Amino acid sequence: MSKKKYNFGAGPCILPDSVLNSASDAVKDYNRTGLSILEISHRSSEFEKIINECEDLVRELLKVPADYSILFLQGGASTQFSMVPMCLMQPHKGAVYLDTGYFSLKAIKEARMFGPVQVVASSKDRDYDYIPVGYHIPRGSAYFHCTSNNSIEGTEIFDFPETDVPIVCDMSSDIFSREINVADFGLIYAGAQKNMGPAGLTLVIVKKALLKGIQNLIPSMSDYRIYNDHNSMFNTPPLFSIYVAMLNLRRLKEMGGIKQAEETNIAKAKLLYDAIDSSECFYGLADKADRSRMNITFKMYNREREPEFLNFAESRGVVGIGGFGSVGGFRASLYNAMDMLGVEFLVQCMSDFIHKDLFKNFKLKQI
Amino acid sequence: MSKKKYNFGAGPCILPDSVLNSASDAVKDYNRTGLSILEISHRSSEFEKIINECEDLVRELLKVPADYSILFLQGGASTQFSMVPMCLMQPHKGAVYLDTGYFSLKAIKEARMFGPVQVVASSKDRDYDYIPVGYHIPRGSAYFHCTSNNSIEGTEIFDFPETDVPIVCDMSSDIFSREINVADFGLIYAGAQKNMGPAGLTLVIVKKALLKGIQNLIPSMSDYRIYNDHNSMFNTPPLFSIYVAMLNLRRLKEMGGIKQAEETNIAKAKLLYDAIDSSECFYGLADKADRSRMNITFKMYNREREPEFLNFAESRGVVGIGGFGSVGGFRASLYNAMDMLGVEFLVQCMSDFIHKDLFKNFKLKQI
Repeated sequence: MSKKKYNFGAGPCILPDSVLNSASDAVKDYNRTGLSILEISHRSSEFEKIINECEDLVRELLKVPADYSILFLQGGASTQFSMVPMCLMQPHKGAVYLDTGYFSLKAIKEARMFGPVQVVASSKDRDYDYIPVGYHIPRGSAYFHCTSNNSIEGTEIFDFPETDVPIVCDMSSDIFSREINVADFGLIYAGAQKNMGPAGLTLVIVKKALLKGIQNLIPSMSDYRIYNDHNSMFNTPPLFSIYVAMLNLRRLKEMGGIKQAEETNIAKAKLLYDAIDSSECFYGLADKADRSRMNITFKMYNREREPEFLNFAESRGVVGIGGFGSVGGFRASLYNAMDMLGVEFLVQCMSDFIHKDLFKNFKLKQI
Repeated sequence: MSKKKYNFGAGPCILPDSVLNSASDAVKDYNRTGLSILEISHRSSEFEKIINECEDLVRELLKVPADYSILFLQGGASTQFSMVPMCLMQPHKGAVYLDTGYFSLKAIKEARMFGPVQVVASSKDRDYDYIPVGYHIPRGSAYFHCTSNNSIEGTEIFDFPETDVPIVCDMSSDIFSREINVADFGLIYAGAQKNMGPAGLTLVIVKKALLKGIQNLIPSMSDYRIYNDHNSMFNTPPLFSIYVAMLNLRRLKEMGGIKQAEETNIAKAKLLYDAIDSSECFYGLADKADRSRMNITFKMYNREREPEFLNFAESRGVVGIGGFGSVGGFRASLYNAMDMLGVEFLVQCMSDFIHKDLFKNFKLKQI
């Protein structure tokens, strides 16, 4: 194997080595069945055990109450942007959205195809560098939609509104990174490729009462009830992604569960934000109170030197820290599988770059 | 590794050992990048090369003309059942369907949500054991939909109708198994998990002129134009499934392409059908002219002894030959990755079972 990279990419993201090793073995021979994990049937008892264990782990780790269903789908969060309104909007009941950036805007755009959408608040006025507060959610709305972690802008919602309206939350980039109270939500969805598993899998956690209220005529593959009624196997599910997600959640449990992961994530983010704040070279993009623990966005005061730092970091094996196109600068994603050592390495890299800089007049030619 | 099984399952199906070995290695370290194939970004140059090679291989192997787009989606054929009418039906133009069994019926059910559907012919009268002919496709229909291979009933369409109406074909279970003339079709779709790759990937080949004619307001993830405009990466695609499909198509090309695969598939199917026809124990379910080369369905004259044969076969490492629930009996799926040796092994197994049977009065206790 070549030298392992420090991958701070926003997703598909890194997974623990132990998970990758088990997944690699299973591609050759799953659990000594004589079959690859890629060729077992979704109707086999082997796969039934896998999907059931995956569901049990989601329920245990997130403490999902019994009146919530756990569903496995395909198509990523982008598919949920239309499935949510398709299923939950009603002719006489519009939906309410919070606009906190790139992905909320995408969700809003899709929802408008299905009925009235009210955007109750937006942080667009300041390039989405904060999470709006103090907005009012009209009673009787079909649902209130928000994006818990804004992976492009680097903000995260830590306080969800108190409301009788069902909260629908896109948790793609922070699910399993911190404790949440599932009972506060009507529906949670998440593309798997951050803290859960490989791309190609979407997790949905939905209150059963919401499913009962669905009245629309919906294509089967866009209807949560169909997944609920068929144990997520109305058709062939993405078996491998579910298997790897199961391995990853099994390991998360062994490592102490979400409480432990959250403590580590807080410490990791603090280390990097402290390094940014204390440097005279870098600055963070988001309001301090709303800073994401998952995606740390920052820039250099001297924007022209950013490509230089990117190259410097890459030469040391740090990859994936380029900021999203429309934002620029840097983005370091500190998902669960990124350990403290990786963050320390990045901080050291930043420090070395600054240090090198101080002496650049003397040393430039030797570098 | 434990003893390799002979897997005749209908899908997710077997893949060649060389493909599984490469896929297994890439899960640990993709191409010496220091990153797992599960953690590389879909925006990376590495993945761009993979998806482009996959597209090129589809185009080369199936001789896809330049005026057709090749798209990679998620959600399986079941998602196409609604995407096709959502995109291609028009208020004044209904669609025409051919009913050849379980999966055509599912497609018809979804299409009815979007507009008028005319079923021009059905083989339901004889439990779908043949492919109807001599039906009329009304001019001006939005499209004509058919299922080229009926994996549950064991029939396959070898002659497609001549019509000015765009033919939309579900080729999930026989694509890449035989030569086709893509120019005869308006749109071809296929879940990958038979002859192409692992579950979680759907291939769509669509005539560009059809895309230009789309007038409906469609959710982004259900709109072929969005996939076409974003090189199938509007959102995170199922990277691993695309990678394994690429490996598998690369191997198909090395092995002589589809022409060679088709010759082998004809020989494999003949071997098994001949064994069925010449036995006094088994009989085939489908009309001889319409017999599928991919899914061979058969039963025993003495239905009560079927579980005994299933056990007998399984004790020898033959798995996945139980027929679909509503059909019963047996189904042996002979996808590309099943080689002649595997089919010979199954035929030997049937012969031994019959032979054992002839002497059962003498030998029953020892078996």
